[in-house]
Amino acid sequence: MSDQPVRILSAGTALPGPPLDTQALADRFGMDRLWRQWVDTFIGTRTRHLAIDLRTGRRRETLADLAAQAATEALEAAGLSAQDIDVLVLGTATPDALMPATVNTVAERLAIDGVPTFQLQSGCSGAVQAFDVATALLGSGRHRTALVLGGDVIAKHYDVTVDLRAVPPDELVNYLLFGDGAGAAILTTEDHPGAPEIRAVRTVLSGLDRPPGQILNWYGLADRSEPLTPASEDYKAIEELVPELAEEIAEELLEDLGWDRGDVSHLLPPQLSVTMTDRITRRLDFPLAKEISCVAETGNTGNALLFFQLQRLLDDTAAPWRALAVAIESSKWIKSGLALERSTTGGRPHP
Amino acid sequence: MSDQPVRILSAGTALPGPPLDTQALADRFGMDRLWRQWVDTFIGTRTRHLAIDLRTGRRRETLADLAAQAATEALEAAGLSAQDIDVLVLGTATPDALMPATVNTVAERLAIDGVPTFQLQSGCSGAVQAFDVATALLGSGRHRTALVLGGDVIAKHYDVTVDLRAVPPDELVNYLLFGDGAGAAILTTEDHPGAPEIRAVRTVLSGLDRPPGQILNWYGLADRSEPLTPASEDYKAIEELVPELAEEIAEELLEDLGWDRGDVSHLLPPQLSVTMTDRITRRLDFPLAKEISCVAETGNTGNALLFFQLQRLLDDTAAPWRALAVAIESSKWIKSGLALERSTTGGRPHP
Repeated sequence: MSDQPVRILSAGTALPGPPLDTQALADRFGMDRLWRQWVDTFIGTRTRHLAIDLRTGRRRETLADLAAQAATEALEAAGLSAQDIDVLVLGTATPDALMPATVNTVAERLAIDGVPTFQLQSGCSGAVQAFDVATALLGSGRHRTALVLGGDVIAKHYDVTVDLRAVPPDELVNYLLFGDGAGAAILTTEDHPGAPEIRAVRTVLSGLDRPPGQILNWYGLADRSEPLTPASEDYKAIEELVPELAEEIAEELLEDLGWDRGDVSHLLPPQLSVTMTDRITRRLDFPLAKEISCVAETGNTGNALLFFQLQRLLDDTAAPWRALAVAIESSKWIKSGLALERSTTGGRPHP
Repeated sequence: MSDQPVRILSAGTALPGPPLDTQALADRFGMDRLWRQWVDTFIGTRTRHLAIDLRTGRRRETLADLAAQAATEALEAAGLSAQDIDVLVLGTATPDALMPATVNTVAERLAIDGVPTFQLQSGCSGAVQAFDVATALLGSGRHRTALVLGGDVIAKHYDVTVDLRAVPPDELVNYLLFGDGAGAAILTTEDHPGAPEIRAVRTVLSGLDRPPGQILNWYGLADRSEPLTPASEDYKAIEELVPELAEEIAEELLEDLGWDRGDVSHLLPPQLSVTMTDRITRRLDFPLAKEISCVAETGNTGNALLFFQLQRLLDDTAAPWRALAVAIESSKWIKSGLALERSTTGGRPHP
């Protein structure tokens, strides 16, 4: 086993196509000004990126495309080559296919082979779950440097022929809240004292006796006789439970670490929508923490979100710092969090 | 971190419905005697269990149903309750939905909450990958007792209205080779000196420059315009590569452990079909090892297979023994293996 701390060397991200603002969605789907105002007020997400052509509905990028691009950026930022990676973990709710697992397609794109690869079926806590698994695998001492990936291409679930005015509200939010994207991070137990250390990872199922807040169906042939709703959300339940679970997991992490609220210099809150993130950040109440959010520009990119936040965090070269990330999975309610610390002064965490 | 060995306390399994023999398949799909003889000679699988009603195509059991049943059996065999479990790992290629992850539905059925859960998107190496992740998580010392699950419901991909005589060979094999099922095992770092110890776990991606041997597609709305083949196999590639990769991983495990071929008392070979398993077992050539196979009765149950083999292994109360399990994932070629050892004499491994 390894007694070395697990450190994060870099992060990389990828977004498909140009940013789509709410006006563009409204134009495409024939929604009026009132609707745009409603989106601005109650959602707040200004732009998102989609891996389909909104006009034709054709897929433009796959998850493998985006994840490989993010991985390449992370490897470059860490000054490593793909051959330095000895284990891969990818989290996603929306793999390109059931088999082969997308993580193995990404490995092939990067010419990585001969190492273990794992793909988690995961929602908005997926990046933290991937960090949890990667940290345990690195801790075993059998691996030294992990490529951790997360991403989603929710646009596959869009029906661009639909009349949005006839869509029930729990389906409509999918068109507004979500965006496609992927992220990557390099974790290592190699000696990099200047790089931020992963101080705690925590993922906790909290779904007992709570109905799913989100459902994402897939289709096998046998399902064709019984049409399934492709994606739906219980947004009321999400509004109510996510802030509560976010507060719980933040408290649990602080207790694990013996940190006070005032010790946290950077907060990476859940990224469901601008309005939800604002509400949660106020509730979490870290008086000195700088908020790191991306949802206004990217929408909710699911398994990719944390990597966008981490990339911004790692760009903050002021040291020392202590950062707390919180993410909540609402399909069956998984509260999750990650604590990072850069303890020494110095420049960027790159070797 | 835990210095305790990880031990396996028990295994449980579940199969849907009654066994379906080849005659029943032939009757349903209008195949002739020649076809049955071809199946008997070249495949050898005598029965399989399906989670759909073959007449109507309707789903009868979900993966969550089967996995919860297997888990209950494993918990009973270990003399534990669901509340003793502090981490879950499920491997599957065919989750019930994309979200919520099936592992969380299983947790709910067992009234498990407040612990981490992970679901791997995995093929025929999935059980070993789940053991790999669970072993690392237990080794971290943050968890003590894991419920490891694996299963597949491939029948969702069956079109029971199809005329099998018109189906291309690479789709036809799916109707013959595969069966549905689920399995569970309890792993622990608690003190159970009589229980078999996990001596080595190894999963290695070996897919570089090799096309997928198996493809399993899923459907989002955006895919409806471009119909995808739901499931296909490159059986020639599988016949050629699986024995080769099985031999490689077996050699690697022996070298890791410092074991000789003659040290292995039980061999759990890959379970693609009776004829393939025979061929691989001969090639692996463990002179003293007792073969533990189930494929003739269950068909290839994917992520569940290893649990059926483990259940039979744990029923063998002769001690000491050394067992080697090998599984190969053909969708993007992952070689995997597991070594177990019961070092002390004594009865069943139950506490």
